[in-house]
Amino acid sequence: MAGTAGTLRVGIIGATGYGGGELVRLLARHPTARVVALQARGRDDEPIDVSHPHLASTGLRIGDALPDGLDAVFLGLPHGAAAALVPDLIAQGVAIIDLGPDFRLRSAAEYPRWYRFEHPRPDLLDRAVYGLPELHRDELAALRDAEVRIVASPGCYATASILSLAPLARAGLIEDVVVDAKSGVSGAGREAKPEMQFGEVNESVRAYGVDGHRHVAEIEQELTRAAGAKLPPIDFLPHLIPMTRGILAACHVRTTRPVEQAELDALFETAYGGERFVEVVASPPATKQVTGSNHFRVHVHHDPRTGRVLVLGVLDNLVKGAAGQAIQAFNVVFGLPEASGLEQLPLAP
Amino acid sequence: MAGTAGTLRVGIIGATGYGGGELVRLLARHPTARVVALQARGRDDEPIDVSHPHLASTGLRIGDALPDGLDAVFLGLPHGAAAALVPDLIAQGVAIIDLGPDFRLRSAAEYPRWYRFEHPRPDLLDRAVYGLPELHRDELAALRDAEVRIVASPGCYATASILSLAPLARAGLIEDVVVDAKSGVSGAGREAKPEMQFGEVNESVRAYGVDGHRHVAEIEQELTRAAGAKLPPIDFLPHLIPMTRGILAACHVRTTRPVEQAELDALFETAYGGERFVEVVASPPATKQVTGSNHFRVHVHHDPRTGRVLVLGVLDNLVKGAAGQAIQAFNVVFGLPEASGLEQLPLAP
Amino acid sequence: MAGTAGTLRVGIIGATGYGGGELVRLLARHPTARVVALQARGRDDEPIDVSHPHLASTGLRIGDALPDGLDAVFLGLPHGAAAALVPDLIAQGVAIIDLGPDFRLRSAAEYPRWYRFEHPRPDLLDRAVYGLPELHRDELAALRDAEVRIVASPGCYATASILSLAPLARAGLIEDVVVDAKSGVSGAGREAKPEMQFGEVNESVRAYGVDGHRHVAEIEQELTRAAGAKLPPIDFLPHLIPMTRGILAACHVRTTRPVEQAELDALFETAYGGERFVEVVASPPATKQVTGSNHFRVHVHHDPRTGRVLVLGVLDNLVKGAAGQAIQAFNVVFGLPEASGLEQLPLAP
Amino acid sequence: MAGTAGTLRVGIIGATGYGGGELVRLLARHPTARVVALQARGRDDEPIDVSHPHLASTGLRIGDALPDGLDAVFLGLPHGAAAALVPDLIAQGVAIIDLGPDFRLRSAAEYPRWYRFEHPRPDLLDRAVYGLPELHRDELAALRDAEVRIVASPGCYATASILSLAPLARAGLIEDVVVDAKSGVSGAGREAKPEMQFGEVNESVRAYGVDGHRHVAEIEQELTRAAGAKLPPIDFLPHLIPMTRGILAACHVRTTRPVEQAELDALFETAYGGERFVEVVASPPATKQVTGSNHFRVHVHHDPRTGRVLVLGVLDNLVKGAAGQAIQAFNVVFGLPEASGLEQLPLAP
Repeated sequence: MAGTAGTLRVGIIGATGYGGGELVRLLARHPTARVVALQARGRDDEPIDVSHPHLASTGLRIGDALPDGLDAVFLGLPHGAAAALVPDLIAQGVAIIDLGPDFRLRSAAEYPRWYRFEHPRPDLLDRAVYGLPELHRDELAALRDAEVRIVASPGCYATASILSLAPLARAGLIEDVVVDAKSGVSGAGREAKPEMQFGEVNESVRAYGVDGHRHVAEIEQELTRAAGAKLPPIDFLPHLIPMTRGILAACHVRTTRPVEQAELDALFETAYGGERFVEVVASPPATKQVTGSNHFRVHVHHDPRTGRVLVLGVLDNLVKGAAGQAIQAFNVVFGLPEASGLEQLPLAP
Repeated sequence: MAGTAGTLRVGIIGATGYGGGELVRLLARHPTARVVALQARGRDDEPIDVSHPHLASTGLRIGDALPDGLDAVFLGLPHGAAAALVPDLIAQGVAIIDLGPDFRLRSAAEYPRWYRFEHPRPDLLDRAVYGLPELHRDELAALRDAEVRIVASPGCYATASILSLAPLARAGLIEDVVVDAKSGVSGAGREAKPEMQFGEVNESVRAYGVDGHRHVAEIEQELTRAAGAKLPPIDFLPHLIPMTRGILAACHVRTTRPVEQAELDALFETAYGGERFVEVVASPPATKQVTGSNHFRVHVHHDPRTGRVLVLGVLDNLVKGAAGQAIQAFNVVFGLPEASGLEQLPLAP
Repeated sequence: MAGTAGTLRVGIIGATGYGGGELVRLLARHPTARVVALQARGRDDEPIDVSHPHLASTGLRIGDALPDGLDAVFLGLPHGAAAALVPDLIAQGVAIIDLGPDFRLRSAAEYPRWYRFEHPRPDLLDRAVYGLPELHRDELAALRDAEVRIVASPGCYATASILSLAPLARAGLIEDVVVDAKSGVSGAGREAKPEMQFGEVNESVRAYGVDGHRHVAEIEQELTRAAGAKLPPIDFLPHLIPMTRGILAACHVRTTRPVEQAELDALFETAYGGERFVEVVASPPATKQVTGSNHFRVHVHHDPRTGRVLVLGVLDNLVKGAAGQAIQAFNVVFGLPEASGLEQLPLAP
Repeated sequence: MAGTAGTLRVGIIGATGYGGGELVRLLARHPTARVVALQARGRDDEPIDVSHPHLASTGLRIGDALPDGLDAVFLGLPHGAAAALVPDLIAQGVAIIDLGPDFRLRSAAEYPRWYRFEHPRPDLLDRAVYGLPELHRDELAALRDAEVRIVASPGCYATASILSLAPLARAGLIEDVVVDAKSGVSGAGREAKPEMQFGEVNESVRAYGVDGHRHVAEIEQELTRAAGAKLPPIDFLPHLIPMTRGILAACHVRTTRPVEQAELDALFETAYGGERFVEVVASPPATKQVTGSNHFRVHVHHDPRTGRVLVLGVLDNLVKGAAGQAIQAFNVVFGLPEASGLEQLPLAP
């Protein structure tokens, strides 16, 4: 590795978005990483407080060129952009943690379908690791000595859905599933859009993406891997909630056979008992219980009346759903304590 | 009827709650009804602005005794209270519009199960009419000359769910349904509760009632009636949204046979084309599009990928989900134009 | 007048903004006016629900040309645009109710200073009436038979500030005043702006316009007229509040001589006792108490500790601060009952 | 001191309120302090997640008795309660950091007036230090070796107001001041109150405390100390904003002599240039820029039109306005780096 003992030199490309801001907020307090470069289109040599007033005290600036000798680069870019940029970074020996979708799907054929672009480097898809440490920790750790180091950090809805359902998928219990998900507006990014103005969002709730949200592709991919078998298409419906941060995924599951609460409890305990960032809780969680933290909180419930299983998972879409999870995976790849820089407790109320 | 030509004298019992406030707001501008009595426990002779500052200009007061000669009484009471009070009102020849659940269920056996009380007058359950004019208009109109006039005004979640699903139920298309519903906080009433404080609700979303929300009983009853056959148990999950008004019911339906969008469009057009308060819309509706009005807005969507049907219905829980719908039914019972007092357009943004 | 008995034909130019939507919402239920034309730049022949989904049931469309024979036109345009358009409309004999600032200031010299444009028709400024019926009712009524009929409808902040302070100004009591005002976001209009995205506004409050908000010009003009003497410059500071509708003006007044509460009460009673839309209240009002209505609610308080007078005024910026007030003035100009079309009670909670 | 090298043993009394929760959130990550005891009335032996679900991962419990050998105790209690408890704690040699008002005022005569109780130990008022490190750092540091160690941590509004105005007070520039302050609801505490229900607070703003907010007493005390001379009574008006955290103090100052912007900039630079937690900024700050952090952000502006000076200060009422500031003072008293445990950057959006 290019880094010297004690400090890892990292860059962030796409630093002015919400995800970029969270990366700065967290990495600026990371005990081992040091942010040495920020990039953003059209923002050369701009103090960070122009785009992120709350981060003024970091004294960081958006710069132009990436310096040499970086250990890792975090990418927060629109889909398609990372795929174009990554090969060059790989050639420089830099580890990539991509917060976008360009390396999440293992099949190149899925990109035209879900993202409307032909993937320029299908050969890299197999070498990228889907950066969900709770499911792929060993693969991430194995990147440490790999020539090509690409972490495809999961989508926010995907993280909530996959972590909620993986224990059931592994146990072969999913016959059919409806994921009815709710998100705060920061998941839609920072660009000014008429429908995201305060006056339109506040005191209102609506569903969107009824023709199929892109995260469905990675959810189905990962649940199929967890199940070891093809699952029926997932019915996934996202909603926009009048709040800034937070995702709640309500997963309504018909099971392949009758189950009881005790079995469900055991499955989740086995899956997550040792996980630093997953909390299995005894009552329906509120998104506010995890705000600002890298925690994922999950509740599983068997309804004797309907025979169905309900799984409710919550996270902060900008932390465990984006920047925090990317740092968690970065920590694993570089052999650091997995919670480095992610120790902050949730902010409530 | 006790009323004289031109004006109907109405009373409101339970006037200090949110539902009571909405009744006053709307009835104070009703062209035919006149509010002549307001009652609320422990609030005798109190100006209305003590409980409802926004209604000061009505000059109304909470009073003690109900005057004689009322044409109708609206009840906004906790469950169990109306059942105790109604027989006496019936004896006085007053029409009852009950916003609570005490006369919604046709089977007395359901009350201990869902509401934890034995119904004191099971004989009246058959004579009450479930006050959803879009489904039971003729029955409501027939009350006009009945000896016992009880309108059991539907619950807020129930209205959204039933109106969303009735066209599919009638067509025998529902194989299985998940209703994932979202509500603003006013549905929880006005009593101070720690979990309803602003600091707890804002910037957060959570599910509740995972053990079975009471409105399930009336939803299943009405969809069974619409279908003419027993349906499987409905998987109903309510959520608390950081907003004050509004319900969105997302109904995920597996159908008994393959359908196409055109058939769905035709079913909804047939069901609701002539309805004054139902708007079938071409894209997912936001709750804000109906705030303050008696409108129900619904969108139906066939997903070719999953084969499922999604129905999204929105309403204002205090208007079409409570006070407005009660007035709509009152209008039908008394032979008034159905939209009397309910002409207000939605308030947006 | 061009109108025939019973109905006044009105048009709205600038119909797609928030102010335009409110005009439609209210005029569509006005007992005498009929909306016969809607215009908006670049939106020819578009159903109204494209811009205002909540108004779909009106069945109105944005059109191209204004029809002949209109009685009145409401203008909701950026500053400078109305000044260019009005002369032609005047020539057609149409009454103008301008919701923008182009005819609010009596001195043409103020336009370059506050609005950065030279007024093209200074001769019309004297003939326009500042459309605050509580202060200029007789002048508005006198427009009825005037050749040039221009109502300059006041700004939202200006309405709240002027109505709060006029009784004190008339009594010669204002030595010095700080107006610290708070507004919901709808006052900033509907155009998508980064700083008005939900994620930026929610859970935050900030002041703006520290170099002088434009409404200062009309506030000082009207208070000077009310006082009959030049007042010192007003210290006016606006804030953006995380809510959609509502303005609260907190007016901190040093008086020219010591006063007592009883004198203040009498002044406000005299000023507003007979006003249909002004409510003098005994405790600090919340903006929610007037939402959706044309009410202005005001509280006056003498603080014996500091010797100062505090006046707190609240209104709905889109109703009494814009569309409602414009309709109120329209009613006066056309000799209609002043509350025509404005009878709606506030919507709370 | 009772503590051993490397770790300070601290307790929190009143742990279940919002201030108590913030103390736990921050102290649980403090590099030197260790929370060894939590107390709260009627909550003996209850896991912390019952009252603070977001803090479950700390594994802490509410206990009964305070253990011996504590170095410091943080008190988050209703006024009057700390005054009764402190003498006994002092006798045990424990340092007290009191987040309530019982030791903030130096004159015992002020307690009956502002807090309606007779202070039981006036002799301690002189020995307590008002815990605003930016003004009283040396006095706090001097407590280290004092027999009686009481830090009276300032109120949230008081912190915002005093830090905003101290540079002007010291320079003798304050002729007269209006402080128009805005706060999120968490400042009102956690107890369930009807007027703090979400449905009442959301989409609304209102002033309160028009008869004099209690924080006026400490604001006047501290500004008088800073000015070295008696100031006229401050006109302080608080508002409730529909948000959870944050205070904005808008301070409208008439100066004793004409000033210019450059002089103001120099005064604030001198006062705060070396302060770790104070950021002097060039444009009006939003409360969201400091959420979750111990930062105070301030903007000073001279208005040439009115001749007045405007100072806008923002902070998070639960951090710099309560728990964070208490920890900052604790750090000073114990000779720790002042930012220990307070390094978190603000959370935005």
